[in-house]
Amino acid sequence: MQTIPIDLGPSSYAVRVGVGHELFKDVSTLFSGRLLLVTSPQVLRHCLRRLRQAAPIFADAAVIKTPDGESHKTLSSVSRLYRQLLKKGADRKTTLAILGGGVVGDLAGFVAATCLRGIPYLQVPTTLVAQIDSSIGGKVGVNLKEGKNLVGAFYQPQAVFADVSFLSTLPPREFLSGLGEAFKCSLVGDPQLYHLLNRHGRSLLKDSNLLEEMVGRAIRVKATIISQDEREVTGVRRQLNLGHTLGHALEQMTHYRRFRHGEAVAIGLALAAKASWRRGLCEASVASEIQDNLKALGFQTSPPDFPKERWRVAIEVDKKREEGMIHFVFIKAIGEVVVEPISVKELLSLL
Amino acid sequence: MQTIPIDLGPSSYAVRVGVGHELFKDVSTLFSGRLLLVTSPQVLRHCLRRLRQAAPIFADAAVIKTPDGESHKTLSSVSRLYRQLLKKGADRKTTLAILGGGVVGDLAGFVAATCLRGIPYLQVPTTLVAQIDSSIGGKVGVNLKEGKNLVGAFYQPQAVFADVSFLSTLPPREFLSGLGEAFKCSLVGDPQLYHLLNRHGRSLLKDSNLLEEMVGRAIRVKATIISQDEREVTGVRRQLNLGHTLGHALEQMTHYRRFRHGEAVAIGLALAAKASWRRGLCEASVASEIQDNLKALGFQTSPPDFPKERWRVAIEVDKKREEGMIHFVFIKAIGEVVVEPISVKELLSLL
Repeated sequence: MQTIPIDLGPSSYAVRVGVGHELFKDVSTLFSGRLLLVTSPQVLRHCLRRLRQAAPIFADAAVIKTPDGESHKTLSSVSRLYRQLLKKGADRKTTLAILGGGVVGDLAGFVAATCLRGIPYLQVPTTLVAQIDSSIGGKVGVNLKEGKNLVGAFYQPQAVFADVSFLSTLPPREFLSGLGEAFKCSLVGDPQLYHLLNRHGRSLLKDSNLLEEMVGRAIRVKATIISQDEREVTGVRRQLNLGHTLGHALEQMTHYRRFRHGEAVAIGLALAAKASWRRGLCEASVASEIQDNLKALGFQTSPPDFPKERWRVAIEVDKKREEGMIHFVFIKAIGEVVVEPISVKELLSLL
Repeated sequence: MQTIPIDLGPSSYAVRVGVGHELFKDVSTLFSGRLLLVTSPQVLRHCLRRLRQAAPIFADAAVIKTPDGESHKTLSSVSRLYRQLLKKGADRKTTLAILGGGVVGDLAGFVAATCLRGIPYLQVPTTLVAQIDSSIGGKVGVNLKEGKNLVGAFYQPQAVFADVSFLSTLPPREFLSGLGEAFKCSLVGDPQLYHLLNRHGRSLLKDSNLLEEMVGRAIRVKATIISQDEREVTGVRRQLNLGHTLGHALEQMTHYRRFRHGEAVAIGLALAAKASWRRGLCEASVASEIQDNLKALGFQTSPPDFPKERWRVAIEVDKKREEGMIHFVFIKAIGEVVVEPISVKELLSLL
């Protein structure tokens, strides 16, 4: 088992990575009042029993269900959850345990941030993307019709429990999507993670020790960055957007249906590598190696052939754009990135 | 002009109290991006022109209107405001200027706390209750059908501008309601404020220097307390609930129609004085003097004659109740209070 500190002053907490019983051994020391468990019907079916076996304390928690899927990450789901919590007697000392993937984590995390002006919560992420990305760093929130994650807060959990044994419940494409985010983390800050991913690929799933190492390494990359810039103020946190400018545009253009998040990010990473080489920030060999390794993991790396005008519109709605300039994350070497401004024209020339 | 520091570490800010032009002289140093102004149609009519004369910078801000009144302090108003802000091009560097009373301040403050995961905001409170109470301390939020302020956040503004010249636009009963909160502040921590209120009463409105002194003193009482307990963790902030346990119950029983907030609090203060005397915490003369002074200001001090069972129900829904015990604020002397547990039975015996 690994314990990774997330160093955020008074909001500091630990992420635990491991398997089952050992992982949860001190969970009861993390809260004093009642525990309520929020999850989705699918996750309940696949993971609740395993969780209760690993940590019987969860068997006593009342369960509140909320539908999964990006289309349910809305203010109406938030409003429904407030009422369900209050109906179950939630008060300011109640702790929410959130069991699920990124959607349930973001949604119920926002409910924790705002119900009774904020109640404590624990994240128990069940997908690879949630374990290494969305459950770490306290970004919670929901979508509006106008765009994704337009409403939210920075609100840190009491702890995160990443049980890698949950990952075997995932459909293969969902696991692959998580590998896309892990690959991004390796490029941002961990060459050893990069080698681990390329050596073992999807067969990581067969070895829980390697899986734990991979998840732990990816989390450490994120932990190092967010402890320098919890609220995206200094710009350091932007490094984590590597591959996301074009990845997000692609997801948006295809209405979040054709590509899973990590699949869109993989295409974004290949394009970011190309952009970095063109700008002279990295060698051509680095860019082509990245593309080859993404392909070997099972990712598509070429963007679909959409008209440039469609790309432009999708890029320009991205909320990370500030006063006309786009902050883009370039690759200097495996494990080293740099944020520089880029014009929409230069971005479009990559496609 | 007075500047009162609200000392909350990295979220510290200043409350300015004064009149017009001088008050707003450095407002432009407090933000860099665009300014959007949120207000209600009534406040717009009575105060916007005065604000723009005092600080022309507000004339350039696009105005977003939201209906006033407790019944509009809801999630649907929040949702509508998000969309209006985004339509006006709000980004993370946009600052909201919130012009209005407590409802608009709480509602739009919550929108600032959660739109794009939090954008900066300025409070420009226009009622006495908002100037000395609701705009200070970063409590923002909305009501649910299940109860008041059940959704919200602790989110501090960049600054608060309390222009006492707005107070002359208030209906007399609204000003009186504010005096109820000011009277509470005096009992909690400022005997000089107590004498000021009793000496001048409602005629404070005729002298802007005295008005400024009164508002400033009331804010300092609150500032001292919240700087010790920003998020109601240590219990110190509970002192500000003096008169509110029974005041809230009374408002709830009368559906927020019969009494204005400060009027209900005044009855709560008289009952808290009685409870304090009965417990031997203060002299009988202190309790009777408090009641006499409240009456002289123009307040009703006896509670309406409702059945005890109705009181009990209303007291027990109060969210400040934790595990069966009620934390009640008792008066030891003018300017000194103490929080002790009380049973519902003892509370009911006061009525």
